[in-house]
Amino acid sequence: MRENAIRKLWAEGKPALIGWLGIPSSVSAELMAREGWDCICLDMQHGAIDYADALPMLQAISTTDATPMIRLEGSDPARIGKLLDAGAYGVICPMINTAAEAAAFLRACHYGPKGNRSIGPLRAALYAGADYVKHANETILALPMIETREALANLEEILSVPGLEAIYVGPSDLAASMGYSSGFDPEFPEVYEAILHIAARCRHHGVVAGIHVGSVDYGQRMIAAGYRLLAYRSDFRLLQWISSRALAAMRRGAPDPAVP
Amino acid sequence: MRENAIRKLWAEGKPALIGWLGIPSSVSAELMAREGWDCICLDMQHGAIDYADALPMLQAISTTDATPMIRLEGSDPARIGKLLDAGAYGVICPMINTAAEAAAFLRACHYGPKGNRSIGPLRAALYAGADYVKHANETILALPMIETREALANLEEILSVPGLEAIYVGPSDLAASMGYSSGFDPEFPEVYEAILHIAARCRHHGVVAGIHVGSVDYGQRMIAAGYRLLAYRSDFRLLQWISSRALAAMRRGAPDPAVP
Amino acid sequence: MRENAIRKLWAEGKPALIGWLGIPSSVSAELMAREGWDCICLDMQHGAIDYADALPMLQAISTTDATPMIRLEGSDPARIGKLLDAGAYGVICPMINTAAEAAAFLRACHYGPKGNRSIGPLRAALYAGADYVKHANETILALPMIETREALANLEEILSVPGLEAIYVGPSDLAASMGYSSGFDPEFPEVYEAILHIAARCRHHGVVAGIHVGSVDYGQRMIAAGYRLLAYRSDFRLLQWISSRALAAMRRGAPDPAVP
Amino acid sequence: MRENAIRKLWAEGKPALIGWLGIPSSVSAELMAREGWDCICLDMQHGAIDYADALPMLQAISTTDATPMIRLEGSDPARIGKLLDAGAYGVICPMINTAAEAAAFLRACHYGPKGNRSIGPLRAALYAGADYVKHANETILALPMIETREALANLEEILSVPGLEAIYVGPSDLAASMGYSSGFDPEFPEVYEAILHIAARCRHHGVVAGIHVGSVDYGQRMIAAGYRLLAYRSDFRLLQWISSRALAAMRRGAPDPAVP
Amino acid sequence: MRENAIRKLWAEGKPALIGWLGIPSSVSAELMAREGWDCICLDMQHGAIDYADALPMLQAISTTDATPMIRLEGSDPARIGKLLDAGAYGVICPMINTAAEAAAFLRACHYGPKGNRSIGPLRAALYAGADYVKHANETILALPMIETREALANLEEILSVPGLEAIYVGPSDLAASMGYSSGFDPEFPEVYEAILHIAARCRHHGVVAGIHVGSVDYGQRMIAAGYRLLAYRSDFRLLQWISSRALAAMRRGAPDPAVP
Amino acid sequence: MRENAIRKLWAEGKPALIGWLGIPSSVSAELMAREGWDCICLDMQHGAIDYADALPMLQAISTTDATPMIRLEGSDPARIGKLLDAGAYGVICPMINTAAEAAAFLRACHYGPKGNRSIGPLRAALYAGADYVKHANETILALPMIETREALANLEEILSVPGLEAIYVGPSDLAASMGYSSGFDPEFPEVYEAILHIAARCRHHGVVAGIHVGSVDYGQRMIAAGYRLLAYRSDFRLLQWISSRALAAMRRGAPDPAVP
Repeated sequence: MRENAIRKLWAEGKPALIGWLGIPSSVSAELMAREGWDCICLDMQHGAIDYADALPMLQAISTTDATPMIRLEGSDPARIGKLLDAGAYGVICPMINTAAEAAAFLRACHYGPKGNRSIGPLRAALYAGADYVKHANETILALPMIETREALANLEEILSVPGLEAIYVGPSDLAASMGYSSGFDPEFPEVYEAILHIAARCRHHGVVAGIHVGSVDYGQRMIAAGYRLLAYRSDFRLLQWISSRALAAMRRGAPDPAVP
Repeated sequence: MRENAIRKLWAEGKPALIGWLGIPSSVSAELMAREGWDCICLDMQHGAIDYADALPMLQAISTTDATPMIRLEGSDPARIGKLLDAGAYGVICPMINTAAEAAAFLRACHYGPKGNRSIGPLRAALYAGADYVKHANETILALPMIETREALANLEEILSVPGLEAIYVGPSDLAASMGYSSGFDPEFPEVYEAILHIAARCRHHGVVAGIHVGSVDYGQRMIAAGYRLLAYRSDFRLLQWISSRALAAMRRGAPDPAVP
Repeated sequence: MRENAIRKLWAEGKPALIGWLGIPSSVSAELMAREGWDCICLDMQHGAIDYADALPMLQAISTTDATPMIRLEGSDPARIGKLLDAGAYGVICPMINTAAEAAAFLRACHYGPKGNRSIGPLRAALYAGADYVKHANETILALPMIETREALANLEEILSVPGLEAIYVGPSDLAASMGYSSGFDPEFPEVYEAILHIAARCRHHGVVAGIHVGSVDYGQRMIAAGYRLLAYRSDFRLLQWISSRALAAMRRGAPDPAVP
Repeated sequence: MRENAIRKLWAEGKPALIGWLGIPSSVSAELMAREGWDCICLDMQHGAIDYADALPMLQAISTTDATPMIRLEGSDPARIGKLLDAGAYGVICPMINTAAEAAAFLRACHYGPKGNRSIGPLRAALYAGADYVKHANETILALPMIETREALANLEEILSVPGLEAIYVGPSDLAASMGYSSGFDPEFPEVYEAILHIAARCRHHGVVAGIHVGSVDYGQRMIAAGYRLLAYRSDFRLLQWISSRALAAMRRGAPDPAVP
Repeated sequence: MRENAIRKLWAEGKPALIGWLGIPSSVSAELMAREGWDCICLDMQHGAIDYADALPMLQAISTTDATPMIRLEGSDPARIGKLLDAGAYGVICPMINTAAEAAAFLRACHYGPKGNRSIGPLRAALYAGADYVKHANETILALPMIETREALANLEEILSVPGLEAIYVGPSDLAASMGYSSGFDPEFPEVYEAILHIAARCRHHGVVAGIHVGSVDYGQRMIAAGYRLLAYRSDFRLLQWISSRALAAMRRGAPDPAVP
Repeated sequence: MRENAIRKLWAEGKPALIGWLGIPSSVSAELMAREGWDCICLDMQHGAIDYADALPMLQAISTTDATPMIRLEGSDPARIGKLLDAGAYGVICPMINTAAEAAAFLRACHYGPKGNRSIGPLRAALYAGADYVKHANETILALPMIETREALANLEEILSVPGLEAIYVGPSDLAASMGYSSGFDPEFPEVYEAILHIAARCRHHGVVAGIHVGSVDYGQRMIAAGYRLLAYRSDFRLLQWISSRALAAMRRGAPDPAVP
């Protein structure tokens, strides 16, 4: 079975960098994958991507070595199985608040006896190889999101769920849940402390921690704090930023954003 | 009939700035249109956009005031009519090398007696208004591309075609056609002179000149030279640039491309 | 944030009229929106519309001032969030039978602390404006459907759910649930009484009542009864009706249905 | 091979009635086909339908006995072949102005030795039967459009093209080409006379005449004049009409357009 | 209402043969339906088919007499209703392990008072006829899948659920659930015995049993054991098999797989 | 630039085997590419594939080493450029009957000075590499089809066109054009002789000959005759064959087609 490049980076202690996709197009997906991100994640929660878009996007990503991931809009086991059958090597699941939810999510991502995923890979076996069913459980990554005050309160129990290998922090929802304004890279002390705390507890439990960031500076701090899976904005947000600056530059002679 | 914002800018002597689309998605199209570009052009020649993609993209653009344009892959009158019926307010047509080709292209873009476009707007009348057929000829812009040595040689004849209002220069193909390497913003003296020459001859003939550029600096020089319609790279190229820099910054701590 | 036109009409005591869509096409969606309906609702339950269809349809509607709504096929919070992120300003949710279900539905439609919707608007912020997250809770409308005998029995509790602003009656399912035949505009006394009763209790609770009708006459009676949100058939049913009559007229010389 | 129902009606001297489609959806296509129109025509010229839409629409129509037709946006033989391979039983081709153009169009619609269509039916053989290649030439209908003053001038030559079986009149373009305003059902004497003249000359040449109308009254007059293939508006125009009237009725209590 | 051909075959004691689809294309769907399979099942669980694909595939199947079925990815009642409204005549639901789950699934497939499906057929009424709502309950087939050790343990209770007419065995998941390796046509004695046992118990309860097989030999044994609904691999697996053999034959002169 | 695997096989004197696609799905495309065919050709002429389908199919093929090709429905240079920009490495063009047509086709496939293709690869540069423009002319294969009596008559002139590297024979159309019935693998002596003659003349001119076959036996004879590019039926025809045999076997106990 084709290996999961993220696991290899983690084994070497290196962070894996995610190219994050919200635009439902296999063209922008292939463009992003070609840039060399370690993995590419289709955001099916806040991105505009549904299954019918995700399938060709996963194929487009598979023209490169980038590991294909999805962030689902929920935790429906049927939908998780369907996206894994389409070839995703990692699943990020939002709003996991308890150990029971985390355990149910892990079961949905794995074949028996570890889980209860139904057997029948289709595209997954084309992408990964004929021995997919045999090795899927040790290849697929299942990442519950820690993004609420409730999840924080249940952190020890969640991190103790047998088989849990990694989690993913959603700082914007976490800040909002803690009573602060949402947005990238929260600096509110209570939230920032919580984010560092999560990394520390993950290290203690032997669980890899990932996080979504909105700037390189914040990202570097998170790597220093121990995070090993990082997404930086998204294709949508990057295009929005550069387009806005390019227009301003053309309109008013401001510095060209694409000529450093 | 809804007015063509480009004409208004030109009447005020101002350049119109094009947001150029190669990614076949109505989501990136709406994103670009919201940024405030004066017009948005769907590149159906070198972009990955076909009619079935173009239709919802034109609708997405129509949620804003940006004028919708298309660059077709050829000059087939049937296809021109079909895209105009879908609501395009401007058509850029590649590889027009002679006055006869320019005249035929203009006829395809206009209703009789000026042209031979078949009558039957569908979405066009939803977008523009019920009086579309009456005012389409004075609203729609038809821009032949000047992008070969042959077109240069025939420039006076092309610019003298009755009813011609504007042309669009393709510098990359033009440079290649003149024996130089292709690419954005050619600085080869012979090519650069030709580009300035086209602007000058357009001014003489009362024809507006447009051009595609790859940097703000080149764009500013072209505006100074008289160009009044400018596209800067494309969504595809902008995303490619920012994604590449963002990855490098995250990977190696280079400066954050999206924090000026 | 762009305002919700329905709220404005309600503030003026006027009924809002819904153009109801079952055909999965952005072309018929734009056509309907252009006609001037106050809002346009994508029926994702009984219409043939899925997320991949809904996205360009919501964009097509956004070319007009009609408020975009969806009727979902269920009450999955993940799916509600995904459609709201796509730009829907109102959500109609079928088969809400208890106050607990109504409360859960309201939570899914709103950001914290009012609800538990995850933050990350994408197209929603393009459509509504950059301050979407701040004002979404007071802009988005969440309408549970009252369409079973069980919901009738629980009506007081449902109408007392904190934050409930409006409900939507499904007369056909309601009639069937009460033991009568399904169909538009039920006149069975027990059902008709129930429909009037719902309007009266809504008025008492300060909740706006909406309803789906199959004729103008029934609609006028419902407006008189206090209903302030009305859908009349659907694009599918209207096309079916006029096509049937047009064919009969052409075939047998019956009166032209489109020449009053 | 499945027979062409239009030919059967013509053999009985009866007019065939076309349900005309401009909305690119297989759902509205199936709805229209179920109503009982003798044939259903996909308008790929002024409708918003491209090949990728046409294929499932042709399949949807094939769930009924309605004969599937297309009106192409031009006369490209490659495109004609591709749509015939997709299962169209009739092709209406716009803007045929000379006998040479008519003859070229007929050749594109037929296999050798009658024409030069390339052999390789795919869906066509699923729909029509395994003997498709053998009987296609006597089943497929090829209808050049007569819709310009030039075509009128060349009418005798066009109607004399060997193998020509039927033509289709486009009254709106014809009126415009003759210097009058475009629109359904022209009553300008010169245009009206021309339309009657075409029918008369068709009868003389043993060619069936078809025409597009905008009202039942005009349609009845055309049948009386000898026309044997008639389309009445389109799904788009019918939906627009009924939606407009339905909204007015709901808004202002005008008569219900769908309750005669 | 159009009858369900599977019921007719069962009434005659004959097995119904399913053409199983995993490729999301209306072209392969129509191809398979034309071959003469008694019914065609869209696999929305392990196939690559979502709602937006399923709709035109159901239409393509409806050009033939093959009964349209779906195998869903889960048991969400909202999704079941949506696919039934799209015209499916049978629903196979995976991972039904208890009588309560089976009963809930049956309710989702039927209108009241038998079930709680919401009324509003759209395409279903086009396909089946205007009396769809009246006869749907006695036409639609609902088949829970028996594919886990838990379901086996609960077999008597499941088969005793009122209104249950048929079940479908998933041998691969069943084998895995019992501790054996997954795959077509399990011969492990314990699993094989279980499969025979299910058939026997179904006969006892007057429930029809269906099963998915990977070879004709196994299929014949299952028919002998009493199974009356059989799928043989899938379009995906069949194409994979023949393509592999065709390539080997072309490459190395092995026997032509398509010339018996 | 990524090399063209077909050229490498030819350099070694080996035949290249084409997996031929008519089903418009990226899933069947990836399945076929995974089987190990040397190249995969999208049939956009007689297959049901349009640009919007071709793009994700080309991406799906690019997950493997199979060289991507297209067979276009015509010879429109604009369309050729658009498909090459989408990443096709080979173009087969139907109905080339004269040296002038062949030369025009070659020009459309190549950048200047060899041809007149417009510069602007998009996905092509993602797939092939950043030096695409520099090496495209020596990588892309342009194959005119020899499939009419007229082309046979002009064979020497066609094979003498400067820059011609390969041709592709369409035996079915060729047989029909010569007055025989169409179909795979013609054995009519006159046609068979012509096919051998083409191979011989190709060898003389240093041109590689390709051909479409319907059986391994015919294919082996063609390889012996010198053909070095061979397609065997198509995904559509292979699926049709195996599905038909599988159904017969299940129905009547005939031998299992997928168990040799």
